[in-house]
Amino acid sequence: MSNKHFERQNIAKLAGYVPGEQPIAAPVIKLNTNESPYPTSPKVQDAIAKFSIESLRRYPQPTADRFRSTAAAVHQVALENVIATRGGDELLRLLLTTFVDPGASVGMTDPTYSLYPILTAIQDATVASIPLMADWSLPQDFSTAINAHHCQLTFIVNPHAPSGRLIDQETLRILASEIDGILVIDEAYVDFVSDEAHDLTQLAVTSDNIVLLRTLSKGYGLAGLRVGYGIGPQHLIEPMLHKTRDSYNLDAISQQLAEVALADQAYAKSVWERVRLSRADLYRDLEELGLEVFASESNFLLATVPPDCPLSAKALYEGLRASHILVRYFSHDRLQDKLRITVGTPEENAQLRQRLATLLQGASGGVST
Amino acid sequence: MSNKHFERQNIAKLAGYVPGEQPIAAPVIKLNTNESPYPTSPKVQDAIAKFSIESLRRYPQPTADRFRSTAAAVHQVALENVIATRGGDELLRLLLTTFVDPGASVGMTDPTYSLYPILTAIQDATVASIPLMADWSLPQDFSTAINAHHCQLTFIVNPHAPSGRLIDQETLRILASEIDGILVIDEAYVDFVSDEAHDLTQLAVTSDNIVLLRTLSKGYGLAGLRVGYGIGPQHLIEPMLHKTRDSYNLDAISQQLAEVALADQAYAKSVWERVRLSRADLYRDLEELGLEVFASESNFLLATVPPDCPLSAKALYEGLRASHILVRYFSHDRLQDKLRITVGTPEENAQLRQRLATLLQGASGGVST
Repeated sequence: MSNKHFERQNIAKLAGYVPGEQPIAAPVIKLNTNESPYPTSPKVQDAIAKFSIESLRRYPQPTADRFRSTAAAVHQVALENVIATRGGDELLRLLLTTFVDPGASVGMTDPTYSLYPILTAIQDATVASIPLMADWSLPQDFSTAINAHHCQLTFIVNPHAPSGRLIDQETLRILASEIDGILVIDEAYVDFVSDEAHDLTQLAVTSDNIVLLRTLSKGYGLAGLRVGYGIGPQHLIEPMLHKTRDSYNLDAISQQLAEVALADQAYAKSVWERVRLSRADLYRDLEELGLEVFASESNFLLATVPPDCPLSAKALYEGLRASHILVRYFSHDRLQDKLRITVGTPEENAQLRQRLATLLQGASGGVST
Repeated sequence: MSNKHFERQNIAKLAGYVPGEQPIAAPVIKLNTNESPYPTSPKVQDAIAKFSIESLRRYPQPTADRFRSTAAAVHQVALENVIATRGGDELLRLLLTTFVDPGASVGMTDPTYSLYPILTAIQDATVASIPLMADWSLPQDFSTAINAHHCQLTFIVNPHAPSGRLIDQETLRILASEIDGILVIDEAYVDFVSDEAHDLTQLAVTSDNIVLLRTLSKGYGLAGLRVGYGIGPQHLIEPMLHKTRDSYNLDAISQQLAEVALADQAYAKSVWERVRLSRADLYRDLEELGLEVFASESNFLLATVPPDCPLSAKALYEGLRASHILVRYFSHDRLQDKLRITVGTPEENAQLRQRLATLLQGASGGVST
């Protein structure tokens, strides 16, 4: 028998997701995958120290109830409105498994988080991709287009990646009421929104068709722990929680550490505020260097390299990389003149600025100041 | 809109998996979910103590390469023959996602691990269930039946659950060569097999269609950590590793602790030997109490309550439960006169024996000795 003949056709033709580069060697300034520049709450370190191997001998609590209770309290929703998942990725997959039939359509914007079309292809469903406007806003006829494609589910990442643009609550409320399927609002970056009044949780839990995605990977400094959660009405959460989720999706350590990190809201909020301040500084720095920067509500900035710049975005990406500074470059049509740069610590941002200045001056034949 | 209308039909009609009871309160003797009676290697405790929150700030290595390298070395196979998964459950799901089309058939024995039909239903595939013989062996026409159902994939748990019966290597080699689809051999309990020469890894990696499932939940005392792995030929491992697996399925802590536990083979082997010795003692004890016990190669025993016993299996289960001793009772037709009892420590087994003796004597009107 020949190799590969066992793979399903939709899987065989699929190219897998390529995660952002994770350097193994040497010190680098890592501004390519939107991780937090600061570690999680020190209380998590205390919790690690207390963890005993005896408690790993038994299966974990299957539905992560203590973590879910903490999340429910933080967001003032009921326990039944929350599902805990292995990072946000697992929630995305469970939404497709539970609510999208093979052959059906899944709506999304273009550009968007590059994992959505891959997970859709794994479910053997079809991507309905609606181009965003030039300013990364939704087109007026977005819900009409989604319904014309009969999308069973639509993914919106808000704040948007990779632009950082925030869609306001009223626009999303209307969108959810207009579309026939489920609206998934991926709030991976919502902790960094400046307006603290932006809060969709009550809208979601009282809705018929909205599920919010949250993660501890960005705002809680825990990308390595792989914990996220979903918030929504019980009739959408329940089948994922009790039917399609792997029985023990979260291990005992992750459940406990995530609970401690989420409960320490004061620490988390202090980190978010530091990131917002650094974001404003980095925005100004990049603009001063001649890049055009989108006003982001996230923990990254999308910077456009103007046509008259002597170096292309890709050349800048490579020049930074040669100096051990990693940022993200996308080959996507509408992104190939841009760089997505994670907001780092003030020190990291200063080194980025200095290196960018050197690269740009070198290319323009100028003399370094 | 009415609730629930968003669920796919196959999900809506599904009853979820019910994990074995995990007591929250009070000390209990827990012999119901086949966990290890002994904690994992003390080296894992050292590794926990050294873990820093700074290392959780970044995404984990996506494919758990260090853990996979250790597994490859332990089993003397190549790195490409190994996939690391969130417990064995994730591997089972990935096998279905990758190789089984909705509507296709999945083969399994009856009885078997109760999760297989549930995962099959989630994939919207059909269960082809072939009854085992009275002694829990495969029927002679098993592969013919599997091929008649056009099974794209067949699950065999070996040693079998819940009997503990071991199918030998030659039988499995012939079976794999006869069936048209993939043969998944779930070796969750293989560490407890008495014959150390029983080893299917070389057969699997040189085969066209065999994938082995291993887990750290039983033999390594790490049910709470949720780490398992698959071993097979590269053309079967690769699409799961690089396409259908959630990008970061194993968190940084789990990867590291699992690597330490797996590398300490000397400690693990000492635990397996203790369990085998306790299994022999428990077997003798249960037989002496008048139960009929199957000769298990696993870390549990399936004990039949004979028809002339004054108490039914269910009544014994409930009597033990009232004394805070948990064992597993199944309502399945062929299992309702049986109890599945995990091998505990010598002390736990002694308490089980004593309580069983009291229950049986009380029911027969005898006087407690």
